[in-house]
Amino acid sequence: MRDVYIVGVSQAPVTRDTSVRGRYIAASVVREALADAGIDKDRVDALYVGNMTSGLLAGQQQLGGLIADYAELSGVDAITIEAACASGAAAARMAYLTIAGGVNDVVVVCGVERMTHVDRDTVTRALATAADWELEGARGESFMSLNAQLMRHYMDRYGARPEDFAPFSINAHKNALANPNAVFHKPVDLESYMASRVVIDPIRVLDSSPVCNGAAAIVLASAEAAREIKDRARVVIAGSAAATAPLALQRRSDVLQLEAVEISTRKALAQAGAKHRDVSFFELHDAFTIMAVLSLESAGFAQPGAGPRLGAENRIGIDGDLPLSTMGGLKARGHPVGATGVYQLVEAYLQLVGEAGPNQVRDARLALVQNMGGTGATVVTHVLRRVE
Amino acid sequence: MRDVYIVGVSQAPVTRDTSVRGRYIAASVVREALADAGIDKDRVDALYVGNMTSGLLAGQQQLGGLIADYAELSGVDAITIEAACASGAAAARMAYLTIAGGVNDVVVVCGVERMTHVDRDTVTRALATAADWELEGARGESFMSLNAQLMRHYMDRYGARPEDFAPFSINAHKNALANPNAVFHKPVDLESYMASRVVIDPIRVLDSSPVCNGAAAIVLASAEAAREIKDRARVVIAGSAAATAPLALQRRSDVLQLEAVEISTRKALAQAGAKHRDVSFFELHDAFTIMAVLSLESAGFAQPGAGPRLGAENRIGIDGDLPLSTMGGLKARGHPVGATGVYQLVEAYLQLVGEAGPNQVRDARLALVQNMGGTGATVVTHVLRRVE
Repeated sequence: MRDVYIVGVSQAPVTRDTSVRGRYIAASVVREALADAGIDKDRVDALYVGNMTSGLLAGQQQLGGLIADYAELSGVDAITIEAACASGAAAARMAYLTIAGGVNDVVVVCGVERMTHVDRDTVTRALATAADWELEGARGESFMSLNAQLMRHYMDRYGARPEDFAPFSINAHKNALANPNAVFHKPVDLESYMASRVVIDPIRVLDSSPVCNGAAAIVLASAEAAREIKDRARVVIAGSAAATAPLALQRRSDVLQLEAVEISTRKALAQAGAKHRDVSFFELHDAFTIMAVLSLESAGFAQPGAGPRLGAENRIGIDGDLPLSTMGGLKARGHPVGATGVYQLVEAYLQLVGEAGPNQVRDARLALVQNMGGTGATVVTHVLRRVE
Repeated sequence: MRDVYIVGVSQAPVTRDTSVRGRYIAASVVREALADAGIDKDRVDALYVGNMTSGLLAGQQQLGGLIADYAELSGVDAITIEAACASGAAAARMAYLTIAGGVNDVVVVCGVERMTHVDRDTVTRALATAADWELEGARGESFMSLNAQLMRHYMDRYGARPEDFAPFSINAHKNALANPNAVFHKPVDLESYMASRVVIDPIRVLDSSPVCNGAAAIVLASAEAAREIKDRARVVIAGSAAATAPLALQRRSDVLQLEAVEISTRKALAQAGAKHRDVSFFELHDAFTIMAVLSLESAGFAQPGAGPRLGAENRIGIDGDLPLSTMGGLKARGHPVGATGVYQLVEAYLQLVGEAGPNQVRDARLALVQNMGGTGATVVTHVLRRVE
């Protein structure tokens, strides 16, 4: 398999601005990522778009062709890839696979989502399409209620307390302060966390990520194409893996063990020839604080029940031994669902090339980047490595 | 690039049965296609699902993980690919690319759609998400009205009459008679065509394909994996190409020239090293008779304005020199949108291995198979060749 490089990135600020139109911000980041790469649009073999809710909330599907047209790439092979909230990374993975296999040389990946122009109930219903409709959605479950189930189970099994989850929210909000593209720039401490409203017991407002709009893009290229661009072969995709688990919690043998996280993390690290201790930072899918904790445990960074300790021991900050959500994560950068996986890759890229500003992780060499659909049903994991 | 073979196929009957549940028919055809291939499920590297309307009409997205679970493939890499009505072939193309490039060995492609459980207006709105919402959908256009525009333009420019379009409908219905999986088994002649109700002038009921449910699956494998299965390397994917054009008709330079058809046909034939005269039969995207005519012209089988002549001269039947829609096409086999592209590939496979029954094209060696999203916005073209 050929090496695949990230050679250009772009991200729009994550917002709750209802005037933002999906096609225009998407076309914008695609053009900007190509400009950042210094690649001519005639070199682009394909455009893969990650999106979850455009059909549901904007009456618009076939975003591949639409965005290709508005980004002046009309004619190009273009499709949309959907895996609920993992759509962005799933699109990046397809681009990676086609370049690694030698069938494409340059692929643009765009994640886009627009969610704040409709009322809260409509968004809740749209997000619930990522759950099992027959076994969960039709019985009144929402993403919030399913994550509340998981958090309750966790607290029951391990005797965890609400304050055990606080560090993940506090850390994300702290890191978002210096990220101009984050939706929140509001410091959070234990007091404000504990004081925040309980939405569905035991999940507080400050446990969950916000509904947002956003678009981000990356340009992936083969070694050969990357070499044509001066100084652009700086970050290589050293590992890529995806795995699935049953959508419905009731169809899993142990709801606190995220099998798709376990499988895809193991495969991606193995492909990269890396161990857990080699990971400089972990962009995990902290849609809820319970998901941050379960991801740490299922990915093998903590024993079952011991995830919160990483927060308590202050190891997850920028200067810790396992920095998490370094630009604010889903919690505070925001979670424009189908775009999130691409934002994560843009942020990891910026860390690895030393352009993360005040949030720069010292000597960042290897990034683990993980994007999740549903409550762990689709998990796409990438390992990015700085080219020395 | 490695050779990629179709090694197993399965199709559910296309129906208007509202009791059919998507996940069960999808899981069924996946299991049957694997059984047909004689491949163990442990050999499956990925499941790519083509679907357009499940989120909109069934509140269910993340079909990759869902169908993987119900087909007992849980754990596998699984995603959904969407390109409106071209979703099925787009999913097949991704499978092809990953195997051709050597990153996967065995991939299952499943197309599934369920549309008849909701009322006609809801379906019409769901299908309109394939058009440009801002420039077409929001202005009251539907797929029917956009195709009516194209048909009017065509009749105006070339002086075509309604009866010029009839042969495409008559041929499709004739071929569906012997296809047990077709939704229609009703002969149509010029008289019944002319007598059929005009839905939006000049489109008659018998110009347009029906709203249906269905699921189909194919198993693609590398030469190496196919060789392990006795007698299964019988059909090779000799060419695969995809192209896009602006979604909105008003953004195209000539609405009667389908650029994405032209580009993807040219590329797919060139990859296969084949000429137009080598094509044994053409499974085209006859969602409307006007689309059959425009596809023939843009694909290079007829000069602009001369497409209807192929029908008039009786060249499109099973015994003609360019058989079309050999198992009934979208018009009469039915058009379960995201599944259609996979049905086309299943049917072409059956022709090439000599299992097309009464509709067998004599000495079928090379199939051109074309699936379209929107009014020509995304076009995915495959060339299949019988292995001699």
